[in-house]
Amino acid sequence: MHFTTQTSSNGVIERDFVLGDVTGVLWSPESGSDGAPLHLMGHGGGLHKKAQGLVARAHYYVTTCGFTVAAIDAPGHGDRPRSVEDGKWVTALLEARAAGQPIGPIVIDYNSSLAERAVPEWQATLDALQALPEIGADAPVGYSGMTLASTIGLMWTAIEPRISAAVFGGVFVYDALTEAARQITVPVEFILPWDDAEIDRESGFALFDAFASKEKTLHANPGGHHEVPWFETEISGHFFARHLGRSVPSPA
Amino acid sequence: MHFTTQTSSNGVIERDFVLGDVTGVLWSPESGSDGAPLHLMGHGGGLHKKAQGLVARAHYYVTTCGFTVAAIDAPGHGDRPRSVEDGKWVTALLEARAAGQPIGPIVIDYNSSLAERAVPEWQATLDALQALPEIGADAPVGYSGMTLASTIGLMWTAIEPRISAAVFGGVFVYDALTEAARQITVPVEFILPWDDAEIDRESGFALFDAFASKEKTLHANPGGHHEVPWFETEISGHFFARHLGRSVPSPA
Repeated sequence: MHFTTQTSSNGVIERDFVLGDVTGVLWSPESGSDGAPLHLMGHGGGLHKKAQGLVARAHYYVTTCGFTVAAIDAPGHGDRPRSVEDGKWVTALLEARAAGQPIGPIVIDYNSSLAERAVPEWQATLDALQALPEIGADAPVGYSGMTLASTIGLMWTAIEPRISAAVFGGVFVYDALTEAARQITVPVEFILPWDDAEIDRESGFALFDAFASKEKTLHANPGGHHEVPWFETEISGHFFARHLGRSVPSPA
Repeated sequence: MHFTTQTSSNGVIERDFVLGDVTGVLWSPESGSDGAPLHLMGHGGGLHKKAQGLVARAHYYVTTCGFTVAAIDAPGHGDRPRSVEDGKWVTALLEARAAGQPIGPIVIDYNSSLAERAVPEWQATLDALQALPEIGADAPVGYSGMTLASTIGLMWTAIEPRISAAVFGGVFVYDALTEAARQITVPVEFILPWDDAEIDRESGFALFDAFASKEKTLHANPGGHHEVPWFETEISGHFFARHLGRSVPSPA
């Protein structure tokens, strides 16, 4: 893991890193991160590790919850070149959407391929983060991410014993994803956009049912998967603080 | 409003009161309640104003959120004598449950009758609470309650402009209740027990859809309506603090 830049604003240190082909970013409290839980964030399809909403949530987790936060670009996203094959999926997706055709089958093929590649990248990233003296192997680990980041996170959490709690949601469901959910036993918060034009509620209900977690909670809000209200970030901070340790100070 | 007893424990002052036929209880912070929001709590069917779970939640709202909290007994519940007619409903309900027959139609008749009587009682209680110098007319008001307390709270919130935010859930839905939800515009948190043996999910979804609130959020958890996890109390504290003011300190 090779750090390339370091900046600081509003109490948060931001360090970009490169690990092999993977580009990522690490946010940590200026006040120090001794014993801080590690929160890993995925970005949505078509976005990247520094998408505006992701950065806002990362800052909240750092400054309000006291977490260290890391995000990486998915293959072909952000600072990573897109392969010819991935480009074909993106073109097909845009064409289907423009033609008013269902995008689900294309997104599922594309995301499942991305997840196959991204899971080992996340594993290597977590290995490298745990090797940093300011994080270490004992920091409890959480994961959060919607849409593409949920596909990746579900496939990863199913086989990754280091993840202790996770937030997923807004995801196209397919058989392998349901199978992954059946392997997941850690506490899960599942965010279900109530009026998503592209993903039906019933598939979300079925995925929620599939989680083997003793503690699982479903949060539904009006709107689609780009309209998750900010208070869900605050509640997820509460959820992770409860399971990873650390405090959530006043929201008021 | 006539106070009959006053005790104090763990930083919470508890005062029983009587207002006409209504028996109630007021919990407030020992440290003082200047400017505290007022949180009104209903109890479930067959329970009372000092049911164990209700008292635990009331203490949380007082000590962690800084609210003043009041609860009253529903007609024929707790310290209030049960009428012969209410007794017939209770007998019918117990017989139906013992015989494995659906209790929904009986609960709906009984609860809608109780709500008709309880709404004016809550209005008078709120009038009297607002007349207390330590509360006053400016304290923001929230309401929470499951099952019977949701039936009452929904009917009341639909016509009560003083309620600024509410938590409902675990309720048998009937037409007048759906109509009430359509009149409700304040932020609502709706708790849906995911595996309730007596109340089907779909009726909960329909009620959630009926709320006219711009902010409404549905929380589903495994189990029935007697198994709502404790963290929902903490999240509701966050919800009310956000809408009524006051802070929610660390859960960790």
